[in-house]
Amino acid sequence: MTKIDETLELKVAELARQTHEAKIPVMIVFEGVTASGKSRLSNELLLALDAKYTHFYATKSPSEEDLRMPFLFPYWKNIPKKGDITLFFRSWYANLIDYKYHNLKADIFKDHHILMQEIKGFEQMLLNDGYRIIKFNVEVDEKKRQEHIQQTKENPLTRWKAQEYEKAIPADIYTEEMEYLMKETEDIAPWHTINYTERGQAVNDMYEHIIEELEKALKDKKKKEENKKVDGKFSEHFETDMFEDTEDEMSKSEYKDLLPELQQRMRELQYALYDRKIPLILVYEGMDAAGKGGNIKRVRESLDPTGYEVNAISAPTETELSYHYLWRFATQVPRTGHIEIFDRSWYGRVLVERVEGFASTEEWQRAYEEINDFEKSLEIEGAIVIKFFLVLDKEEQLERFKERQNTPEKQYKITDEDWRNREKWDIYLEASKDMIDQTSTDHAPWIIVPANNKKAARIKALRAIIERCEARLWGVKRY
Amino acid sequence: MTKIDETLELKVAELARQTHEAKIPVMIVFEGVTASGKSRLSNELLLALDAKYTHFYATKSPSEEDLRMPFLFPYWKNIPKKGDITLFFRSWYANLIDYKYHNLKADIFKDHHILMQEIKGFEQMLLNDGYRIIKFNVEVDEKKRQEHIQQTKENPLTRWKAQEYEKAIPADIYTEEMEYLMKETEDIAPWHTINYTERGQAVNDMYEHIIEELEKALKDKKKKEENKKVDGKFSEHFETDMFEDTEDEMSKSEYKDLLPELQQRMRELQYALYDRKIPLILVYEGMDAAGKGGNIKRVRESLDPTGYEVNAISAPTETELSYHYLWRFATQVPRTGHIEIFDRSWYGRVLVERVEGFASTEEWQRAYEEINDFEKSLEIEGAIVIKFFLVLDKEEQLERFKERQNTPEKQYKITDEDWRNREKWDIYLEASKDMIDQTSTDHAPWIIVPANNKKAARIKALRAIIERCEARLWGVKRY
Repeated sequence: MTKIDETLELKVAELARQTHEAKIPVMIVFEGVTASGKSRLSNELLLALDAKYTHFYATKSPSEEDLRMPFLFPYWKNIPKKGDITLFFRSWYANLIDYKYHNLKADIFKDHHILMQEIKGFEQMLLNDGYRIIKFNVEVDEKKRQEHIQQTKENPLTRWKAQEYEKAIPADIYTEEMEYLMKETEDIAPWHTINYTERGQAVNDMYEHIIEELEKALKDKKKKEENKKVDGKFSEHFETDMFEDTEDEMSKSEYKDLLPELQQRMRELQYALYDRKIPLILVYEGMDAAGKGGNIKRVRESLDPTGYEVNAISAPTETELSYHYLWRFATQVPRTGHIEIFDRSWYGRVLVERVEGFASTEEWQRAYEEINDFEKSLEIEGAIVIKFFLVLDKEEQLERFKERQNTPEKQYKITDEDWRNREKWDIYLEASKDMIDQTSTDHAPWIIVPANNKKAARIKALRAIIERCEARLWGVKRY
Repeated sequence: MTKIDETLELKVAELARQTHEAKIPVMIVFEGVTASGKSRLSNELLLALDAKYTHFYATKSPSEEDLRMPFLFPYWKNIPKKGDITLFFRSWYANLIDYKYHNLKADIFKDHHILMQEIKGFEQMLLNDGYRIIKFNVEVDEKKRQEHIQQTKENPLTRWKAQEYEKAIPADIYTEEMEYLMKETEDIAPWHTINYTERGQAVNDMYEHIIEELEKALKDKKKKEENKKVDGKFSEHFETDMFEDTEDEMSKSEYKDLLPELQQRMRELQYALYDRKIPLILVYEGMDAAGKGGNIKRVRESLDPTGYEVNAISAPTETELSYHYLWRFATQVPRTGHIEIFDRSWYGRVLVERVEGFASTEEWQRAYEEINDFEKSLEIEGAIVIKFFLVLDKEEQLERFKERQNTPEKQYKITDEDWRNREKWDIYLEASKDMIDQTSTDHAPWIIVPANNKKAARIKALRAIIERCEARLWGVKRY
């Protein structure tokens, strides 16, 4: 019988300290049929690592609440922050098999191929950002497995657990699905199969794979740091007159008539969306002082507050910075039937982070596709995504800045940063145009809203929301 | 008809900016029967406040998952951080009525008076820490309310909502319960009753109450800052020989025989606790290098990792510091049937925070009672709480420090901070003795573990856990 090699354990512990120091996030997946030894194997690893930066997440069959959120939501919530290690005891793979076997959200996921695409995209996006994903498939001789199940059954204190085994997805179905999934996802992050029949050997195998992967991670990280370039420039190929239209007319009396009518309709639609379990996501971007806040206020004025939320996005906190940049948004998506309004959004990655050099060239360039994928996932799961870009001209902005400065109760709204951003007007304009050019998709097109006239901008946004929602709810297409 | 007074709205917004700046956390509760106008009233307030620091939490009937956590858990998770404002649309009060009406966790809460005590304790603890709690009870003329329900029923888009009203707790029962609860909790934080029959009047009333409360909050905060004292001294009255016993014997062979036997029993008990849905909380405190980590390792070595978690407590992060100090622990308590191990704990408040002056005198002195209440709540909801204090003598610590320094793979374990703490040995000793004196309760007594001999300490802890669990599970009392 092979013994556990303690030098391997110490080596893993030492490398984990190094990846912790180097701020590399590590995800370790354990898949395998019930009673295969996954739990003892993963506990062995847990014991070797420092609890200060090690986490353990066990995938359970989705609850009703889980089913109101996107498929990958539990994993977005539990990705490790930079430098931490999370062990996933069953993972998005087991989750996929669960969805398929139990026909969960069958209206959306008739084709489970979509879920595999989601998984691939998720892993690839994390890998691109420097996450490491180590995947283990734990096997065991069938005779050993049956013995173990028998022991569990015979002990009165563990008998109930044996009953749980019986409720699990049958081993043959699970194995067949996993074989297919492993083959399909092998090229993104490789799978390591561990045979647990001989415990000592299994643990040593696991340690050896982890050592190899962590050593590689440390080397890659160093290489990446050396090659990092920060440059906000980009070869633009957008229409240059994209933002020319800043004026839209709206008389005071027309506004006074239309507003309450549209707001009343918004409230009705909120209830209809809730009833039909459709989530709605509204994204507001635009120049400083373009009137995003006031526009959002008119949208939410008649809504039921138990069904919507506003996310006013500021600079990321220290905690937020220690995750993938999409983490703070992916964990804030609405549950079915709810409305989430983003006052600024994930687009900060290709706007302020690009312009100010907070994201490297490779990072913000990669972000367009990542964002398109992210929004595509939301749409697949049934969400309506509407994105507004409020356009102001430079003179009008100056007027508004001055007005804020001269009105005591508005002074808090204007800061030195606003003036600094104004000096970079042209660069922000370029970044905004690139953004619209790269992320206007069929499922989530940008709506450019002329915003010199605040009233007209508000009515335009309300109408656009109402039309999209009506189209989804009843197939009415007015646009 | 009274109009909404815009100057009141502006005043509320301005004061909220000030409480935000002053880092005062504010909780605003909205209670009232269904269709009373709570939603429109709270939305009015939401619109007046800056979304950057304002949150909205709606209490729903507890889900199955909620019922696996303590009664106040959802509120602990959603208290605002310092400077933020959270609106609670229905709150712990509605939750209490829900528990009572639907007989939830009936085995624990036969007597709903316990829940009211929990609520009182929760509010008082937050108030003591500078939180402000503003409570509104929204009423409306019954005729108006019935009209509103009728309208909701008649609109095809909102009809389902009217059906939800019918599923709610009957208005007369809710009202009767609330009247009692308001009377009982009036003296902790006062209730304001708002009549929504006349909308403009109702909004103005709400604003006036909020203005008054926020102005008071700002004044109190200033006064509190002026009176703040930081002093780790305390008039001790503990037994001075509390930590005299640091030696305990255990031969190598005895250890080798006992350990696997006790660990096997731990695993069985883990399953038994899971089956009986009893949560287990283990707290480890003690001198630096007393062997907490190694002791915990022996406890968890045979456990199923899907059912336990280790929380290794470091200095609080910036985010954690912006909440009540118990927040990061109260949100980490185990769900029913799970085991949560704390390697250092909330007792940091009366140890390092007292000694290093991170907590003011009033804060750490108040903490004993807060901690006793916190643990009492856990016990009421069925948890077993076991607290170990590992005692090392000063010479043995020096030996271990030196060994760490001289062993390359252990060097990471010893830092300058450990040496600095060692210099404060006597002060830490005093703080530790006070702690044990003040927080050894019937429901959660301290177990002092002589730790010069690591093996003996491990066996002692394992035995203590096994005995407590067996006693709870089968009424066997060996101690």
